[in-house]
Amino acid sequence: MSYYFTNIIGTFVFDEKLNLVKNKKSKDSEPIPEKKLAKVLQLFKNEQYYEQFYQKNLALTKQKIKESVSNDQLIIQASANINELDRVINILVKRLREWYSLYYPELDHNTHSHEKYVESVLSGKKKDRGSMGAELDKIHLDQINILAKEIQSMYSLRKNHEDYLQRVMSGYCPNILELAGTTIGAKLVELAKSLKRLALLPSSTVQLLGAEKALFRHIKTGSRSPKYGVIFSHQLIQKAKREKRGKAARMLADKLSLCARLDFFKGEMKAKEYKKELEEKLK
Amino acid sequence: MSYYFTNIIGTFVFDEKLNLVKNKKSKDSEPIPEKKLAKVLQLFKNEQYYEQFYQKNLALTKQKIKESVSNDQLIIQASANINELDRVINILVKRLREWYSLYYPELDHNTHSHEKYVESVLSGKKKDRGSMGAELDKIHLDQINILAKEIQSMYSLRKNHEDYLQRVMSGYCPNILELAGTTIGAKLVELAKSLKRLALLPSSTVQLLGAEKALFRHIKTGSRSPKYGVIFSHQLIQKAKREKRGKAARMLADKLSLCARLDFFKGEMKAKEYKKELEEKLK
Repeated sequence: MSYYFTNIIGTFVFDEKLNLVKNKKSKDSEPIPEKKLAKVLQLFKNEQYYEQFYQKNLALTKQKIKESVSNDQLIIQASANINELDRVINILVKRLREWYSLYYPELDHNTHSHEKYVESVLSGKKKDRGSMGAELDKIHLDQINILAKEIQSMYSLRKNHEDYLQRVMSGYCPNILELAGTTIGAKLVELAKSLKRLALLPSSTVQLLGAEKALFRHIKTGSRSPKYGVIFSHQLIQKAKREKRGKAARMLADKLSLCARLDFFKGEMKAKEYKKELEEKLK
Repeated sequence: MSYYFTNIIGTFVFDEKLNLVKNKKSKDSEPIPEKKLAKVLQLFKNEQYYEQFYQKNLALTKQKIKESVSNDQLIIQASANINELDRVINILVKRLREWYSLYYPELDHNTHSHEKYVESVLSGKKKDRGSMGAELDKIHLDQINILAKEIQSMYSLRKNHEDYLQRVMSGYCPNILELAGTTIGAKLVELAKSLKRLALLPSSTVQLLGAEKALFRHIKTGSRSPKYGVIFSHQLIQKAKREKRGKAARMLADKLSLCARLDFFKGEMKAKEYKKELEEKLK
């Protein structure tokens, strides 16, 4: 008759008197009964085990951290970077507009879309003959052009991130992807910090994700309460009439909440039905 | 005997009785005497001239605006964009560090320089085997890589701008360029808004260009007065001992002020002497 005891550094076998034996665990050995546990635990206070405990613990922790990287975090990073890119592109396009306006000031006024503006600069089209802009030598225009090229490449990086998000999300949260679209869907996961938390949030919170600032202002100062967070840019809400937007946001958030639950609990694909339903109700 | 009168829409010839004649100005025609000017000016109140005045005025204004674009403005734009790039690179590198840390967290801690970090990511070197980072598939790592490439290309854009500034400044303000270096020199022109204004500023103002915030805080709250603005990053001040930095800044600003004047009034090239002088005095 022998006992065995297992901890993170291995399995140890004891004889009836609780002396450590080197024999391997045999078929008839039993786990240490609880009554006798204290004495065995005492044994492991011996310094000879300290290093082993430390190493094994470290290895296990590393493993846990390794495994904790999930689709959530990948989506969050990519979505956050799309945000940064928008910010950065904005900063640089403003500079580009100011700079290129030395040469062709009329273009700034005539081109509202940032992306089109960058294209126009790169197209190398001559400015109007009546332009008030100065004639600039190639050496100067070249600098402006490489800035424009940089911005264009950032636009394509942004596009690339979006395609990537779509691919990741189509496996991980297809319902959210279908109903919310790539950017908004990823943003929701980012704000909720994980699909799990998104699935557990009440739909009224989903409705206001991304409107925290306005919400706290409402609570503190009694200003009007916000009606939508990031879902505001969803086409169902954009298309709705102004006075119906609040209602549309509530209905959309309801369905998005359901989608998150379906995705998290690996349920069926229902987003298309939901979408149709919403479109009909909001006509 | 005839008179002539010139304004922006042309030269008009009058006979002795101040009737408009179509004859061209002959050799013996004289400018309208001042006494008779009022009567002639009356003539141009006629509506038939309004359109001509308008068009000519517009054309002249356009011309003036065209000509007002100067080296100053080109330097200002390039210098400002270097600033924006620094800001933007900072934003994106922070994101890159967070993102890549999912895969290789140890690299973030070991690499302080942003530029080196970007290089390490792009080198494609395998992470240590003991790394706590998750294993990521190529599809995920690819996204991180194209972000890193984008940042690298921004670093080279910044470098390109610096080379350009050096070329422009070596013709326009060689003394400033020599003594202050490209980045600081351009920044001084940018902050002063033109070489002319920089030349006219007292050297104590040059010393504090870029430290306006600290200066106003000093004036309003009585906090310690700033000792230097953008010239702080100049190597003469960086190399100086802490307690001597104020003095170094004053001496450097003195010489920079002289350089700006030499450059603006197309004086000789004296910056090298100044530099030697300062280096010896500040040893």
